[in-house]
Amino acid sequence: MNIILLSGGSGKRLWPLSNDIRSKQFIKIFKTEDGNYESMVQRVYRQIKKVDADATVTIATSKTQVSAIYNQLGESVGISVEPCRRDTFPAIALATAYLADVKGIDPEEPVIVCPVDPYVENDYFEALKALGRQAAKGEANLVLMGIEPTYPSEKYGYIIPETPDQIAAVSTFKEKPNAAAADEYIRQGALWNGGVFVYKLNYVLGKAHELIDFTDYQDLFAKYDTLAKISFDYAVAEKEDRIQVMRFAGQWKDLGTWNTLTEAMGESSVGDAIMNETCENVHIINELNVPVLAMGLRDVVISASPEGILVSDKEQSSYIKPFVDQIHQQVMFAEKSWGSFRVLDVEEESLTIKVTLNAGHSMNYHSHKNRDEVWVVISGTGRTIVDGMEQEVKAGDVITMQAGCRHTILAESELKLVEVQLGKEISVYDKQKYIR
Amino acid sequence: MNIILLSGGSGKRLWPLSNDIRSKQFIKIFKTEDGNYESMVQRVYRQIKKVDADATVTIATSKTQVSAIYNQLGESVGISVEPCRRDTFPAIALATAYLADVKGIDPEEPVIVCPVDPYVENDYFEALKALGRQAAKGEANLVLMGIEPTYPSEKYGYIIPETPDQIAAVSTFKEKPNAAAADEYIRQGALWNGGVFVYKLNYVLGKAHELIDFTDYQDLFAKYDTLAKISFDYAVAEKEDRIQVMRFAGQWKDLGTWNTLTEAMGESSVGDAIMNETCENVHIINELNVPVLAMGLRDVVISASPEGILVSDKEQSSYIKPFVDQIHQQVMFAEKSWGSFRVLDVEEESLTIKVTLNAGHSMNYHSHKNRDEVWVVISGTGRTIVDGMEQEVKAGDVITMQAGCRHTILAESELKLVEVQLGKEISVYDKQKYIR
Repeated sequence: MNIILLSGGSGKRLWPLSNDIRSKQFIKIFKTEDGNYESMVQRVYRQIKKVDADATVTIATSKTQVSAIYNQLGESVGISVEPCRRDTFPAIALATAYLADVKGIDPEEPVIVCPVDPYVENDYFEALKALGRQAAKGEANLVLMGIEPTYPSEKYGYIIPETPDQIAAVSTFKEKPNAAAADEYIRQGALWNGGVFVYKLNYVLGKAHELIDFTDYQDLFAKYDTLAKISFDYAVAEKEDRIQVMRFAGQWKDLGTWNTLTEAMGESSVGDAIMNETCENVHIINELNVPVLAMGLRDVVISASPEGILVSDKEQSSYIKPFVDQIHQQVMFAEKSWGSFRVLDVEEESLTIKVTLNAGHSMNYHSHKNRDEVWVVISGTGRTIVDGMEQEVKAGDVITMQAGCRHTILAESELKLVEVQLGKEISVYDKQKYIR
Repeated sequence: MNIILLSGGSGKRLWPLSNDIRSKQFIKIFKTEDGNYESMVQRVYRQIKKVDADATVTIATSKTQVSAIYNQLGESVGISVEPCRRDTFPAIALATAYLADVKGIDPEEPVIVCPVDPYVENDYFEALKALGRQAAKGEANLVLMGIEPTYPSEKYGYIIPETPDQIAAVSTFKEKPNAAAADEYIRQGALWNGGVFVYKLNYVLGKAHELIDFTDYQDLFAKYDTLAKISFDYAVAEKEDRIQVMRFAGQWKDLGTWNTLTEAMGESSVGDAIMNETCENVHIINELNVPVLAMGLRDVVISASPEGILVSDKEQSSYIKPFVDQIHQQVMFAEKSWGSFRVLDVEEESLTIKVTLNAGHSMNYHSHKNRDEVWVVISGTGRTIVDGMEQEVKAGDVITMQAGCRHTILAESELKLVEVQLGKEISVYDKQKYIR
């Protein structure tokens, strides 16, 4: 099974756990059998591998997510990096060209495109396999997944099939309707559009060449920023006559808001949390290392991270976006391919962060124009390179670096350090990278 | 006016803004005319000085509060330090002996004892002055303040006067009653016991010598830990026949719970906070430097500090204590006489804190047995002394100190530093002080 997972946006609706660089699909919120927590992308990846251990998984995403993906899934996962955001048609075209030209997938093989964040059980991925087999038959150019609707939702697009069969030709598409229209569509046998597209590789490659002037993957990648923003639905699906839909009646949830996300949580709290006995339908997700105490609340979600604290009625939590848009602060934590960092203190002319490097990983070799830095290693062992000079370091060692000085650190074991940045114009953009 | 302010307990009921070393009276929550925030103790001190600029103010408290008092009121305020906690009779006896022997107050002068945290207006302190004048007349040995009750509270003790006059002899005292009994007392003309005791200095000094075997203040201080715990009400007031009560009908609030405290707040939030328009009767006190966003809440208090986060229905917030008793963590921030500190990061074998030294102040000269330390100065200028070696320091300077090494830092301007502590058994008790 060749599967492309579309990993989108920054997800302000799940602030403060999502921020400009951590999208909602990376929040570790789902308890696994071994008692740890996994994120949506980890859950989906694990489910795919369970259903098909040999599946070729490619994540189509922006470069801001690459570090988080490698951090959470390991570095063997395929990533089709979008140089900038250009909606789903260019993203799917790029990922399909990547499968053809980089992965060498046969043009006749089926490709399954699916969102990265459906909250589903394994039967969903079995259904995706069936969709792949259906596409391979060549009865249609495009096969979609139609979710059996459970209520007249206003949040989804609808697909009206020609017959109520398990597999049917698509009669028409309907945009997100109001409740009354949704009710009417459902009476006509409509299904929710699950955002899944299955096709033989050369079908989308052909469409891409029809609509975009490019030679191969590298060329498409190079001119990606010149492409128009257009959705795959609009550019391809809605114009395709040879198109089918396959019904799916299993669990399918879109966990895009705190309200829906907390419904999927196995427990009422994650992290250090206390609730008194008068709390009802309260969920707490606490990523800070101090306790949250909740008393006498009902239908409330509390979410705390280094970015901030949300306390919201669950129903109201879906209106969060404009309020989060008002909040302007630097990113306070991030997962990177080499580890993670967290801001500990912000002053006018200094910034103190904690850096955790995974064993065997290192930062880029880099320098800053406008700031000096001090590292205090607090645990682990490794090596620093400062202006070419290599040195072994361990807990308690202090490294001072003047502005302009090139530096990196390589972790032998997991290594943690406190970094104090000092200067008048401290910015994440003040960074020059070098080849070591 | 000689006034003794009784500054008590650790105030877990206002967690997370109060902790083991910051009592509720030090929380800066009341907006002043100049737009800053003051604490209860600052508010009361300012009000006393407004009513009587020459008032001699002595704060009777434990040594754990001395730093916070000097930090908030300056070092000119008198403090009678209780070596350990022994309830109100020993505390008042010690403070009275301090006034006689250290401050040299005339034994015939009236002394006013009052809690440090009533939420009142200036008329309350005018009333205290009137109580002082009444005590000076010598009609009674002890004059109390009786607050005109506004409802049959179960939280206060009651004083039943012999007549409804402004000043009357006390008929009897009643312990905190249930609501029905309180109703009955009020029908009999009872007043709330305001916890104020006014007397001529030599009266309480005489009582102290009757009940405790001591020579002078120094002697009493030295044997303080051998004294029995007993309240002033029980030891003195309830046994005194020559006792009067003066009525007070002005504003008087006891802000001991989040529910009552938020009622006294001038605004709905302090600190970085956003509320949407569907919030009703919500108060946010946020001492963190990241935002709190509240949506769709009603009758809720949110309070966030480096110690933790409370989200509570206001009514429920009065039942907080047993939950806070469950929380065992180190103190995450504190105000000291020389400045303040805040814990930034806790690891198994390291602790990172931020220290702010006020201009002209310094730490004690000290060493640690089990930990090394690193200082990174992030702003300001000053001087360090490390094993006797003095050195000027400024932002960007790094000082490393091995376990056993004696060290201090003196701030010329306000000076901030990041301190990384490194070792296997990091504890606040691992500290040896030296005379410089």
